[in-house]
Amino acid sequence: MKFLPFSIFFLFLSSFVLANDGYKLWMQYYPIENAESWQKEGIAKYQINATSPTLAIINDEIKRAGKGFFNFEPAENQENPKLIISKLSDLNLTTFQINKEKITALGEDGFSISKSENSETLILANTDIGLLYGTFYYLQLIQKGSEVPKEGIFQSPKIKHRVLNHWDNLDRTVERGYSGFSIWNWHRLPRHIDQQYLDYARANASIGINGTVLTNVNANSLVLTTEYLEKVKALADAFRPYGIKVYLTARFSSPIELGRLKTADPLNEVVQNWWKEKAKEVYDYIPDFGGFVVKADSEGQPGPHNYGRTQADGANMLADAVAPFGGIVMWRAFVYSENTPDDRHKQAYNEFKPIDGEFRNNVIVQVKNGAIDFQPREPFHPMFGAMPNTPLMMEFQITQEYLGHDTHLAFLAPMYEEVLKEDTFVNGKGREVAKIVDGSLDGHSLSAMAGVANIGTDRNWTGHHFHQANWYAYGKLAWNPYENSEKIADDWLRLTFNNDDTFITPVKEMMLESREMVVNYMTPLGLHHIMAESHHYGPGPWVTGGSRADWTSTYYHQASESGVGFDRTKSGSNALGQYSENLQSVWGNINSIPEKYLLWFHHVPWEHKLQNGENLWNNLALHYQKGVDEARANVKLWESMKGKIDQERFEHTLSFMKIQAEEAAWWRDACLLYFGQFSKMPLPSGVESPKHNLEYYMNYKPKNVPGI
Amino acid sequence: MKFLPFSIFFLFLSSFVLANDGYKLWMQYYPIENAESWQKEGIAKYQINATSPTLAIINDEIKRAGKGFFNFEPAENQENPKLIISKLSDLNLTTFQINKEKITALGEDGFSISKSENSETLILANTDIGLLYGTFYYLQLIQKGSEVPKEGIFQSPKIKHRVLNHWDNLDRTVERGYSGFSIWNWHRLPRHIDQQYLDYARANASIGINGTVLTNVNANSLVLTTEYLEKVKALADAFRPYGIKVYLTARFSSPIELGRLKTADPLNEVVQNWWKEKAKEVYDYIPDFGGFVVKADSEGQPGPHNYGRTQADGANMLADAVAPFGGIVMWRAFVYSENTPDDRHKQAYNEFKPIDGEFRNNVIVQVKNGAIDFQPREPFHPMFGAMPNTPLMMEFQITQEYLGHDTHLAFLAPMYEEVLKEDTFVNGKGREVAKIVDGSLDGHSLSAMAGVANIGTDRNWTGHHFHQANWYAYGKLAWNPYENSEKIADDWLRLTFNNDDTFITPVKEMMLESREMVVNYMTPLGLHHIMAESHHYGPGPWVTGGSRADWTSTYYHQASESGVGFDRTKSGSNALGQYSENLQSVWGNINSIPEKYLLWFHHVPWEHKLQNGENLWNNLALHYQKGVDEARANVKLWESMKGKIDQERFEHTLSFMKIQAEEAAWWRDACLLYFGQFSKMPLPSGVESPKHNLEYYMNYKPKNVPGI
Repeated sequence: MKFLPFSIFFLFLSSFVLANDGYKLWMQYYPIENAESWQKEGIAKYQINATSPTLAIINDEIKRAGKGFFNFEPAENQENPKLIISKLSDLNLTTFQINKEKITALGEDGFSISKSENSETLILANTDIGLLYGTFYYLQLIQKGSEVPKEGIFQSPKIKHRVLNHWDNLDRTVERGYSGFSIWNWHRLPRHIDQQYLDYARANASIGINGTVLTNVNANSLVLTTEYLEKVKALADAFRPYGIKVYLTARFSSPIELGRLKTADPLNEVVQNWWKEKAKEVYDYIPDFGGFVVKADSEGQPGPHNYGRTQADGANMLADAVAPFGGIVMWRAFVYSENTPDDRHKQAYNEFKPIDGEFRNNVIVQVKNGAIDFQPREPFHPMFGAMPNTPLMMEFQITQEYLGHDTHLAFLAPMYEEVLKEDTFVNGKGREVAKIVDGSLDGHSLSAMAGVANIGTDRNWTGHHFHQANWYAYGKLAWNPYENSEKIADDWLRLTFNNDDTFITPVKEMMLESREMVVNYMTPLGLHHIMAESHHYGPGPWVTGGSRADWTSTYYHQASESGVGFDRTKSGSNALGQYSENLQSVWGNINSIPEKYLLWFHHVPWEHKLQNGENLWNNLALHYQKGVDEARANVKLWESMKGKIDQERFEHTLSFMKIQAEEAAWWRDACLLYFGQFSKMPLPSGVESPKHNLEYYMNYKPKNVPGI
Repeated sequence: MKFLPFSIFFLFLSSFVLANDGYKLWMQYYPIENAESWQKEGIAKYQINATSPTLAIINDEIKRAGKGFFNFEPAENQENPKLIISKLSDLNLTTFQINKEKITALGEDGFSISKSENSETLILANTDIGLLYGTFYYLQLIQKGSEVPKEGIFQSPKIKHRVLNHWDNLDRTVERGYSGFSIWNWHRLPRHIDQQYLDYARANASIGINGTVLTNVNANSLVLTTEYLEKVKALADAFRPYGIKVYLTARFSSPIELGRLKTADPLNEVVQNWWKEKAKEVYDYIPDFGGFVVKADSEGQPGPHNYGRTQADGANMLADAVAPFGGIVMWRAFVYSENTPDDRHKQAYNEFKPIDGEFRNNVIVQVKNGAIDFQPREPFHPMFGAMPNTPLMMEFQITQEYLGHDTHLAFLAPMYEEVLKEDTFVNGKGREVAKIVDGSLDGHSLSAMAGVANIGTDRNWTGHHFHQANWYAYGKLAWNPYENSEKIADDWLRLTFNNDDTFITPVKEMMLESREMVVNYMTPLGLHHIMAESHHYGPGPWVTGGSRADWTSTYYHQASESGVGFDRTKSGSNALGQYSENLQSVWGNINSIPEKYLLWFHHVPWEHKLQNGENLWNNLALHYQKGVDEARANVKLWESMKGKIDQERFEHTLSFMKIQAEEAAWWRDACLLYFGQFSKMPLPSGVESPKHNLEYYMNYKPKNVPGI
């Protein structure tokens, strides 16, 4: 095979663009420009030192990319290789001038990419997995048309455990899943390893994710039986060469359900021993099992409260069980009760702050980004900064439970970034959430991030093609929580679609503004949790009554003729008192609080003037209208992109964007009709009249909404 | 684009064989041999007369096939076309010598393919859909490397309504579905038309299927609400250009559930009017709606029995409602009750035979191939031949409820063929079931066939790659119930994998023998319905007791120390009396009945000698062993095929075949241990000893088995 015919090939390939269902995610490996020069410089002839299952994967990946980029299969281990992939320990250090210490310091998962004096490209690392990460990074560079900078690339993750949480049930339904059903086919396991499991692991490895929690936090103890552990082992074996560890959710009452004990009291020695035996069994199957994730004492889940014990008592019992095997416990802080009279916002902090420092050193407390529940916008959780003696991990939700489910384009990196970059001001300035999460602020070596997955059986994995970007963005921010959204969007678009700036530039802008657009048409100005009951699909500001006030909308918006918003200042629940003095003073003042948080912390009169001189009601209405206008403008923008990408993904995305625009108007109309009952003011100019009356929206109850 | 570079292309394409997940089914359009000559003769330059959505589909299909076959995009409507696709009415009859009457006689769905005097290829039909069928047929010829015979091809379907029945629920679970979940995403409908809906319609059109029943026969009246009819309409609109009509299952009690009536009595005028109004509403949405499918008075479903009415009363009410719009009613004969003391086998016949001739002329009675329920082998249903005054349609099950679910390779064409070719001997010889089903025997113009679909969200549609062949085979037999299995298997293999006879010949043989293999390791010699309870996964000959005897195994096998088998002769239930005199005499005699039906009709002593001189017990044991041996031999055979097809489908199939071999042994061991309790005889030589004891098998209860 010679280089000459390439130009001919591209001619053909352009007419070869057939259906693209999106399954290949950001690993499209479409033909690149300047293929010849990349060929010569790059991956055409490469050397890969030593063999292992992971190195075989690297090998396959290079060949696959070569076929896509150049329609050419790169050959390994030829003379005069242009690309050398090697663990530091396998490299002949007499041949290459290498800063050994610098690479050693990159640790287990780090890698470097650099040019040798003879202009070979070197991908170096301390482990096979490091090489895998480095290879993906290098292939992504090629696809983007970027060069390896002269000074080289030195990367290592800032966070140790970068995991996806699957809220997948054993019957393959997915709680808050909007892209089909669980990709884990438990029935066929352990005997059949589906190709999709490998493709899943590969996709995660390509963005640095190194763990997966297979089961729903609302846990089923069945997964801890021998029958299911054999299945879990099969998945763990499949994922291992990709550097992915498996974790399971542990139902706190398992000793009763499986072990036939009378109690699950964490201070009871028989219970402790049951867990120790169970952990031993798990590690017999899976020697590198990651550990347990626990949701306890919340939303009906059993936990240490049932026995008058603390969350630390519960977590430590499990931690002791997995400690001999190197396992960890991710103990969720999402603990609240309808029987506690206090503001739901305050309960986790009140529960955990007093036991700061009481956890074993293999426990990490998993804290959602905000104190309520994955709203389109939440101020950061006040636990961040409040527990210096306990490692805290971040839990983001990738699946869009509260952000429009499958059909609403909302690029979430800006939401994640907003929280990570927020300064807690605990003991001074520069105490950003990211520094707490990566352990640097308080010197914790245990660090982790969890993302609640948006992956399902849909042919494109995530329902909306653009929701692939949220999986990708989560991985990138788990690797480096200081990464910025603009770069993530740019890279993702180039890897997923093309390198055409007439496409990239406008679409990237649309992505970057999309989350704010959703906030505008759903919950502007700090409104929150006003979605429909149970399935959370569509607006439901009228939701009230029932068994749990803390699951109703009226609890959160407190709308009345006097105004709207939850008073969390000293005159109200004083949840604000859980934040630093600095934030208490800025956020506690109705005039200095950023307007995006206004109704989160304040009950504000309808006629109160905001910064633009308009009253609250008019501002609210204009925000809703703005969201709708943006969603409609996105449809137009996307339509103008026709022909720039393959038709299948174009049409699919367009169809969803039209739904989003319709539903944005549904949100606007329903919410403004509802709140208008209290404000008793007319809609300001520029805001469209609702299509139907309030009764219509209140009576619209779609059936069989997915995800519950 | 010139012809010369083709040889170069094939060089590349061979290394281009990447992952193949099977989504493309039997429309792989892989590169063909002698591409140059086909190019010149064939589809490179074609003419397509007139435009319509269906003709646009034909156009796309030819281009798609051209790219696959030749890596070349055929061009339409050039000078000197080599291929002309035209409705007879659009053809310039002065240019071509055409037997107009012969083509007209092919009817709505027929087509012809022939050579003109100038050696153009002509695809002619009376309708656009006929042209679509003809185009698919022609492209399949090319892929198989077949020629258009000199005398031409003249095809028309023998059966008018060729429908798939989806037992899909509105929450996307699928009753008896083993390949994931329903491909109908009701939540996204009507606003999002998924590409998979179009691919589904296309696949069906490619094999002549022209109708789809979207919903489970265990019906939910919700689908008849306006909210859902809008969704159904969206699917119907998407399917229409492919010639696929939509049908719905009608829950008999809908007038109560939706219309708030107090009764659903079919003779009540208010009820009749409710259905008339509902039918009108349905046809307002979908002018070519196919009609209703009804399961009534069976397994908990409401029906005319609730009001002391006959099945004809029920069917006719619905028939009158859809008649003004050209709709039909498919009324299922699968009616039986645990409260009827008679053999379940006899109940449908007893219910329907007395009302033969009482149905409206737009009713067709849908009869399962056998009288029990889709067993691995059943004698044909005695209703066939017993109701000359009523059109009867055949219901086959494609999904493998009783044939090993997703992982057992069982090519079902031989099973379908066996029933279709069986002579009922009603009023003489040559009264085959196929002639009743196609209406020719009794002169019915209304004819239909239903296949219970095996399609789901799995990336390859059907779970097992080879189960695609059952969907394909069903379509081919619905088009022509006289087709033979060997040709179907041969064609399917060539379209799906390759034209390599070293692959085709052995794999085809394996396919053709696979169903008998399953019979051997599950239910040899006429045994039936001895599967595990409820999910029917694995053996359960010990299933007994509970609320319904007719859902237990002991009811069907009647094993005791005196022997095994259900006596359905005169000395027993005399279900045999429902068949023709001829069959009564042959099948009624323990020595003349084909051994495959022995235990279906006779209770036979263990020591009774069969034709081979061995006793029943030894024969039973040897059949089980044979099935296991065959399943294991298939694994070996398949392993020897490595490299002949793409790795992804190869590995997937191998993995399933290994499961099948394991489960065949599970069946053998469990059944022989169970029946051995009664025979009290040792296993004959050549039969392996069971791995575990009977208790082990009886206690093995897998969790979360799909499909219920």
